[in-house]
Amino acid sequence: MEGRGFYNTHSRPQQAAARHGIELLVQAAGQLDPGPPPLVIADYGSAEGRNSLAPISAAIRAVRQAHRTPITVVHLDRPNNDFASLFELLRTDPGSYLEPADEVFALASGGSFYEQMLPPNHASLGWCSIALHWLSRVPVSPGHAWPTMRTGLDRAPFAAQAALDWVTFLKHRAVELRPGGALVVVVPASDRDGCWSLAGLARHVMATLEEMTTGGTLDPGELARMLVPNYDRTLDELEAPFADPELGLRLEEARLDYVADPIWEAYRASGDVGTLAEGYAGFVRAAFGPTLVAAMNAERPADARREFLGALDAGLRRRILAEPAALCEPTVATLLIVKAAARP
Amino acid sequence: MEGRGFYNTHSRPQQAAARHGIELLVQAAGQLDPGPPPLVIADYGSAEGRNSLAPISAAIRAVRQAHRTPITVVHLDRPNNDFASLFELLRTDPGSYLEPADEVFALASGGSFYEQMLPPNHASLGWCSIALHWLSRVPVSPGHAWPTMRTGLDRAPFAAQAALDWVTFLKHRAVELRPGGALVVVVPASDRDGCWSLAGLARHVMATLEEMTTGGTLDPGELARMLVPNYDRTLDELEAPFADPELGLRLEEARLDYVADPIWEAYRASGDVGTLAEGYAGFVRAAFGPTLVAAMNAERPADARREFLGALDAGLRRRILAEPAALCEPTVATLLIVKAAARP
Repeated sequence: MEGRGFYNTHSRPQQAAARHGIELLVQAAGQLDPGPPPLVIADYGSAEGRNSLAPISAAIRAVRQAHRTPITVVHLDRPNNDFASLFELLRTDPGSYLEPADEVFALASGGSFYEQMLPPNHASLGWCSIALHWLSRVPVSPGHAWPTMRTGLDRAPFAAQAALDWVTFLKHRAVELRPGGALVVVVPASDRDGCWSLAGLARHVMATLEEMTTGGTLDPGELARMLVPNYDRTLDELEAPFADPELGLRLEEARLDYVADPIWEAYRASGDVGTLAEGYAGFVRAAFGPTLVAAMNAERPADARREFLGALDAGLRRRILAEPAALCEPTVATLLIVKAAARP
Repeated sequence: MEGRGFYNTHSRPQQAAARHGIELLVQAAGQLDPGPPPLVIADYGSAEGRNSLAPISAAIRAVRQAHRTPITVVHLDRPNNDFASLFELLRTDPGSYLEPADEVFALASGGSFYEQMLPPNHASLGWCSIALHWLSRVPVSPGHAWPTMRTGLDRAPFAAQAALDWVTFLKHRAVELRPGGALVVVVPASDRDGCWSLAGLARHVMATLEEMTTGGTLDPGELARMLVPNYDRTLDELEAPFADPELGLRLEEARLDYVADPIWEAYRASGDVGTLAEGYAGFVRAAFGPTLVAAMNAERPADARREFLGALDAGLRRRILAEPAALCEPTVATLLIVKAAARP
């Protein structure tokens, strides 16, 4: 994801998707046994924190209705995440939950949530929103930039990697959660009709990239390496690991929702297609720009990378102006997962 | 401090100063009552982490000789600190203490250690090395770039700010430490003769800045604002707050040491004055470059800031080649501070 606050500004669809997840998080927070202080809330895949403010603040309010215990919030993301923007946001944003006077503190950790990142029995609450569709690795080589757009044998390795990643994630959280602790997962998903939220935008992106390749500003080899390792699982795929009692986690609730896309809704209300094009181009650049840029030839100067992002932005705007694209009924799965309480 | 790993590469004098502090930290770590898990080690003013690896690793080894409890290390620094370099270092450096399989985990927090940053009774061990000479604010305006180089009335506000900052720091740590917990502070200090470690280098820096101002590449207003808010306290100044029993902290040990300067020692062994000049210029840029650059006129382009750092580097090298400067017997104070154990 793009740093320096850019992701914070251009991630409204990710934020809109979390509504049901926040309800489940608040419900779980209200029922917690606080345990020895501090009570730990883990935010898996925080990025720069903007989209964590609402859920974490709501969870803290719910905890505070019953308990005065000190609270630490741990934001976890990749080591190269822009943690400086996150800490700056927490110290300056009016919506920040940070409140030392109320004994609410913020921490961060840089690593991979496909590994163990916290001590055993540590977190009372976990939150992971719009992060788990990022696979831990790219299992095969070229094809469509988005695995979800692939079919048949070309798609199978991604489905397998997604299944493996999901079990790996859950196994580590089963260790890190306190007995009785709860984890809420919000994740882009595929519905049973196979409709994929970003299909419209992904087509525009691919067309733009192919145009840049034809025009000579992008090498065919670079295009071939441009692969966004996202995979949107079905509800069946998300539910599968819980059939194994050894997992140590119980799936309390799982639902699919079609969520409103705020960029599209604003366009429907205003009719301003320029704002629509700007909104989607910014969304693509914030969420996927760094992944695409990383596929460019290593010897390219920094200017070429900036020019690539500029050309991608311009191409996307032009295509969206010509053919306004909505996210195709954005679909998210929301899961409430609980670790069994210790026997009394 | 300069980010992107530059500080890690150019902070060997800071590292050399910590030897007695590490001994005291190991001693304290070996005597801890671990309390409920995890055992927390707080690293106040971590920068990019390079100089934390040796002390934190040594402390963990000492804890592990007696206890299997999970350990979290919290690195605390300014919100704009380069935490990405820190997490990358922890995941890749052979000297890293990070070891999830041994239940040793890393966290970070961006804020100010002149505020409370952790829950009450949270940290069993604290470490703060070569950080507390940075004042929380600049109490007055122009004069010599380094308060320690000032005299009389021009210096008094800095002494007062340093006293206030030190008490503020200690009061927050008195809250954050667990009863029985220990804090080791290593801090540049002034000896009773008033010799200041960086005096030689500071003279070279000032001469270079004044030359740039005369030559027109720096405005007089910019030079006037270039103030490094460092203050090296005397041992008396460091011991003063502990006379107040309300502080809740006991000073177990306090010593002044003249430490070897590794850049100077290498020069004495090799006679290679070019390496000496490069080492000191890099040290100045890593430790003070960002502070000086921040005083430049806001409307200056980024190029001007890079050019300023380049000119500072070139001027320093030239002056050091002509008149090799040693750090003037670098003096550090090492303090072992303990919070009274809870009554049994």
